[in-house]
Amino acid sequence: MLVGSEAYRTVWFENGIVKMIDQNKLPFFFRIQECKNHVETADAISKMTVRGAGAIGSAAGFAMAQAFFDCGDKDALERAKKLITESRPTAQNLFYAVNRVYNSKVPSEEAQKIADEDVKACEKIGEYGNTLIKDNMKIETHCNAGWLAFTDWGTALSPIYKAKRAGKKVFVYADETRPRSQGARLTAWELKNEGIAHAIIPDNAGAYYMQKGIDMVIVGADRIAANGDAANKIGTLEKAIVARHFNVPFYVAATLSTFDINCKSGRDIPIEERSEEEVLYQTGLDEGGSLRRVLVCSRSPAKNPAFDVTPAGLISGIITEKGIIKPDKIASLVSK
Amino acid sequence: MLVGSEAYRTVWFENGIVKMIDQNKLPFFFRIQECKNHVETADAISKMTVRGAGAIGSAAGFAMAQAFFDCGDKDALERAKKLITESRPTAQNLFYAVNRVYNSKVPSEEAQKIADEDVKACEKIGEYGNTLIKDNMKIETHCNAGWLAFTDWGTALSPIYKAKRAGKKVFVYADETRPRSQGARLTAWELKNEGIAHAIIPDNAGAYYMQKGIDMVIVGADRIAANGDAANKIGTLEKAIVARHFNVPFYVAATLSTFDINCKSGRDIPIEERSEEEVLYQTGLDEGGSLRRVLVCSRSPAKNPAFDVTPAGLISGIITEKGIIKPDKIASLVSK
Repeated sequence: MLVGSEAYRTVWFENGIVKMIDQNKLPFFFRIQECKNHVETADAISKMTVRGAGAIGSAAGFAMAQAFFDCGDKDALERAKKLITESRPTAQNLFYAVNRVYNSKVPSEEAQKIADEDVKACEKIGEYGNTLIKDNMKIETHCNAGWLAFTDWGTALSPIYKAKRAGKKVFVYADETRPRSQGARLTAWELKNEGIAHAIIPDNAGAYYMQKGIDMVIVGADRIAANGDAANKIGTLEKAIVARHFNVPFYVAATLSTFDINCKSGRDIPIEERSEEEVLYQTGLDEGGSLRRVLVCSRSPAKNPAFDVTPAGLISGIITEKGIIKPDKIASLVSK
Repeated sequence: MLVGSEAYRTVWFENGIVKMIDQNKLPFFFRIQECKNHVETADAISKMTVRGAGAIGSAAGFAMAQAFFDCGDKDALERAKKLITESRPTAQNLFYAVNRVYNSKVPSEEAQKIADEDVKACEKIGEYGNTLIKDNMKIETHCNAGWLAFTDWGTALSPIYKAKRAGKKVFVYADETRPRSQGARLTAWELKNEGIAHAIIPDNAGAYYMQKGIDMVIVGADRIAANGDAANKIGTLEKAIVARHFNVPFYVAATLSTFDINCKSGRDIPIEERSEEEVLYQTGLDEGGSLRRVLVCSRSPAKNPAFDVTPAGLISGIITEKGIIKPDKIASLVSK
């Protein structure tokens, strides 16, 4: 997608060097981080310079390909594999990519293939999702399930990018998505670069705008259970309930790798409780142009659940690279 | 209510001086502002050193009483009245208090009476609301309708303070209430000072905790229409919808001065659109202990509606100083 007038991927491989947009500095600074070997790439994954399921998978595949260049013997290669695998504890795409490259005949080609497959899957989501979008629609999205979270295109935002290319006008309400503000920081940044009309809204304003007339909500997902329940960023459940109240269609966009068929329902998905510091403090740019961390509220205890689970019954459809499916049809589709 | 171990009112009158807690500095610094004459008090109202319907009313009444000391003739008094009246454009309690003191026989006594009546009304709301609270309840509140917004006690928080004094244990979830974060800044500060167990939660986490088990929601109101629709801080409507989804009782607490019988329904209440700067920037305390304004997100357009309207049908009851009433009974009660 575009940054200014140039097309970028989130992470890419060039002459043995892994290059990536430094997402820790967005939206305040746009910097490309270069990782010359697998140790540097693993470090970048662990420091969240690159983040998001698809983007982590690509970066990890490239890191494993670098390891084949870096390591003189089998023992060193095993240590490298372990280092990359442990760079993020729970990223399923990471394990998948590392193992695939490790077992391949031409590692750098296999890694490139993984990245290209991620791009292709996200682009297909965009094509299927675009069929739901009509000219002049107002669309709300929560958190960031855009191209920055994948290798390119993204999931929830991909249909919007395809709609734009098809000449449709859309207006996007980007929920701020406290406490980490991925909507206000990353989604808004993406949309601005792609020239899509949008506004950041406080999470509190969702019901107000749905009441006034939002045509659809599209969000991503971190994990989808066999019964169609979808875990996603905290606040997604709230938007789904409000959307149902106002009869606004509510779509989840996700690659098939997000489906966890071993997980029967949302009740089996553990919810990570993150540090209260994320609620009490905010990082921002001061007037001198430096990033600064400030205490933004009372020194009280805070609670910070990172995700919630939206029941299948509140989801109008799940947009995947194989088409748009009803949440209650997942089990039968997978068994095919 | 308590600040540390001392009892305070939000604003009070002492030997001709109006004293108030400087709410622009909370929760980071606790400072008492002293206003020696009506000009200084009007200035404090206009700079929002004192804010909230009831607190503004008391401050304006005291300012008008000061004007009688300050002004040598009728013309000067008229100019003073105009100055105070124009210190905030749309505060109904302000006009009411200024006129009452202006037309009174003993201005300083009348001003004190207005302040005491506000305290009494809020305390009664606490007593009626307390009848709804059982031991060990979990209560969610939005924005700040605590004692800082009134002369003492507050509206939404008053029942909680009464429950505490009655020996009941409660746990309060204080919604952060972006973009101005009155929940995280003011409500949390009040609760901490009163020793009430609480946690600040991101606005996004409301549905998550209601799903897990919140026993009631209590919020304030800025204006209540004849049909029971209630305008309040942006995000209130969203909480009301989610509360209904999970069958959580949803109460509005408000003094009778909040009812606007000339307003037939919520559709007649205009919604103020505030500056996008409130969404894009945050003020907080840096590591050196100075207040600093930082840009916290992408330089995108933002939208910032200040209020939304919760339809009467989603409100379980309105807690007033005259008792708890059903929203659809307002018109018939007022006609009595």
